[in-house]
Amino acid sequence: MKSISIGLLGLGTVGTGVVKIIKNHQDQLMHQVGCPVEIKKILVQNVHKKRPVEIDPNILTSNADDILFDQDIDVVIEVMGGINATKDYLITALRQGKHVVTANKDLMALHGSELLTVASEYGCDLFYEASVGGGIPILRGLVDGLASDRITQLMGIVNGTTNYILTKMTNEGRSYDEVLKEAQELGFAEADPTSDVEGLDAARKMTILATLGFSMHIDLDDVQVRGISNVTEEDIKYGKKLGYTMKLIGYAHREGEKVEASVAPTFLSNNHPLASVQNEYNAVYVYGEAVGETMFYGPGAGSLPTASAVVSDLVAVIKNLRIGVNGKSAVTPQYPKRLKEDSEKYSKYFLRIHVQDEVGVFAEITTIFAKHGVSFEEILQLPIKKNETSEIVLVTHQASLTSYEQILQELYDLQAVKKVKSTYRVVRK
Amino acid sequence: MKSISIGLLGLGTVGTGVVKIIKNHQDQLMHQVGCPVEIKKILVQNVHKKRPVEIDPNILTSNADDILFDQDIDVVIEVMGGINATKDYLITALRQGKHVVTANKDLMALHGSELLTVASEYGCDLFYEASVGGGIPILRGLVDGLASDRITQLMGIVNGTTNYILTKMTNEGRSYDEVLKEAQELGFAEADPTSDVEGLDAARKMTILATLGFSMHIDLDDVQVRGISNVTEEDIKYGKKLGYTMKLIGYAHREGEKVEASVAPTFLSNNHPLASVQNEYNAVYVYGEAVGETMFYGPGAGSLPTASAVVSDLVAVIKNLRIGVNGKSAVTPQYPKRLKEDSEKYSKYFLRIHVQDEVGVFAEITTIFAKHGVSFEEILQLPIKKNETSEIVLVTHQASLTSYEQILQELYDLQAVKKVKSTYRVVRK
Repeated sequence: MKSISIGLLGLGTVGTGVVKIIKNHQDQLMHQVGCPVEIKKILVQNVHKKRPVEIDPNILTSNADDILFDQDIDVVIEVMGGINATKDYLITALRQGKHVVTANKDLMALHGSELLTVASEYGCDLFYEASVGGGIPILRGLVDGLASDRITQLMGIVNGTTNYILTKMTNEGRSYDEVLKEAQELGFAEADPTSDVEGLDAARKMTILATLGFSMHIDLDDVQVRGISNVTEEDIKYGKKLGYTMKLIGYAHREGEKVEASVAPTFLSNNHPLASVQNEYNAVYVYGEAVGETMFYGPGAGSLPTASAVVSDLVAVIKNLRIGVNGKSAVTPQYPKRLKEDSEKYSKYFLRIHVQDEVGVFAEITTIFAKHGVSFEEILQLPIKKNETSEIVLVTHQASLTSYEQILQELYDLQAVKKVKSTYRVVRK
Repeated sequence: MKSISIGLLGLGTVGTGVVKIIKNHQDQLMHQVGCPVEIKKILVQNVHKKRPVEIDPNILTSNADDILFDQDIDVVIEVMGGINATKDYLITALRQGKHVVTANKDLMALHGSELLTVASEYGCDLFYEASVGGGIPILRGLVDGLASDRITQLMGIVNGTTNYILTKMTNEGRSYDEVLKEAQELGFAEADPTSDVEGLDAARKMTILATLGFSMHIDLDDVQVRGISNVTEEDIKYGKKLGYTMKLIGYAHREGEKVEASVAPTFLSNNHPLASVQNEYNAVYVYGEAVGETMFYGPGAGSLPTASAVVSDLVAVIKNLRIGVNGKSAVTPQYPKRLKEDSEKYSKYFLRIHVQDEVGVFAEITTIFAKHGVSFEEILQLPIKKNETSEIVLVTHQASLTSYEQILQELYDLQAVKKVKSTYRVVRK
């Protein structure tokens, strides 16, 4: 029985996990795909470096061509990361008729469409389940499980670092800076955490999810992004008082033929299924017209969960290989891209402002909202002892983004408003 | 372009949902499967009954043979329920080379293995995603998404009626009888609720899940079942005090080559992902050695969610049809069945007993536990004013079922123990 040969690009923690799973699950893999699976070559930077897993040194190479042009290699697994050079490798692999499994969300968010087109041209599979949500089989869930439905909403906690930070801030009442520092010491956050805390990582994943979920090609630039670095422990405390939990939410919504996508710190009502997702866990909430609410929960990262998703994709590729149907499973976007205008994006908002503690100020403020047709769900007015200042915390009913931005501008311009402390999107179940 | 012809067995609420989805999603379906999809015949009891959906009366029939022996029908969708007659229909359909999609958990739990064998012999697909968890794509999640992993634990809230009842009892402090009556009036519970409240429905679903998850043929009789009809509001109150939420949990665990499966009311620690699953929602928690914890959440029943799962299966069948690979996706169990002995089944337990309020009684009780090597995680002793009775509530550390049953027997036999009020399995995260 012919065995399937794998070329592995990269041998970091995920790559090592892939090697371990394929080694330790050889019987199970045989049972699933009906033939042996063998890693034939591994691309590394330094072939002499000591590795935490036992590997025949003869299969290591520092020359990508040894894999990309090896006629015996059926499937290339890419777990090296990076964008431009990696993209070239994968395009070469596909043109050589090799199927590709990748865990690279940055690459897929930026060049997924192009890579999928090349794969389709050359009759190859290109699977990327591990690029979103680590071990959560969310992409298959979107493509297969909800195939018959019309998905109108996707909400995701898709970045473990920020969820860890917000969970600690919420449960322990600590500041962003303090928790971030601790997270860095514990290895839950990178030395340069920008891509995580400013929401870019989450935006990349939402690009991939929205493209699949809405069957419409969404670009990274279409996703409005705001990170968590300005979230304060006071904001979270006020939210708690009102029954909300703060999460960094990737939000994608379809109405009629138009969609919107964003990433922003968001207050979720405590009964929302995403509100109880804690620490470094990820979850994606999907609303379909027929199925209603579903949610997929699991570890969003980690070398073994990600490696497990990579091997699941590998199993799918090999099953397709054995029945000769590779390159047919990709679903090209059905709809042309149509984005909502700001005037078509509706949300509730939390707003916290400091105002002069004088007669008539509250009326001035509420008049601005009324003028734009926006009413309130909840209002809290609290005296602050110093400087004759009052704090006003309010939650609006639905407002269009256009109206809300005009309201904010008019509030800034109001003499009595000393400071707009913070504002967040609010999602209630 | 040849269209795919469907024969529908049954036109109740799920069947009506299937008709609606296929009608309203014709474009989307075309895009997914590349050809038109048409319902050619529908089996009903009464062809003259008024229907809540517009249907050409000429496609209704009360004779199953009109569908089973129609050479043009490619796929039979079974949403009529029932066991013996339905099984005969499906076997006939498979032998006639028709692919089958069913939402019938009772049938699959009892005769799934036989039906899958017939399907495989005749090269037909037999898909049954809708039989477990309504709209949650959990079966695909088990087979595909976690293909590369070794699943060691499955825990499910897989019955909406009991979860609704327990949620109401927990949130509103009301009694089982009162909440059940209300649920019946609201249509959330059947007039005869036995199959739901006594855990049989959940056991059937766990049979299907454990068979797939462990790749081992598990029979309904292998699942130990206990329902919720003896759960009291006091029990729930004590659980709350200790940080636990009461849920009807289907539990399947694998250790080495042996498995156990049960359905029982269980105290979950509040931080367990399943603890926050409320009302009629279902969720399945899966622990895999590589991926760690994942959870699938969604509506466990309902005509549209179930119909949506049925149509997802239909899409999968048609994709297979178009590339000519039907009958190859079923994974036959890899391992022979090996069940744990009671002495190999470990759990923590909650126990509430009434004892005589006398010196030395507590020592007598703890001596019994100590003799069997079982220690305590928490103990609460509360005086009860009348009859010189004390109430003792305790949570044990891990104990084997054998030890625990012996302990219970010795407690029953103890003069000072007036009553064993209740005992439940405890699962902490």
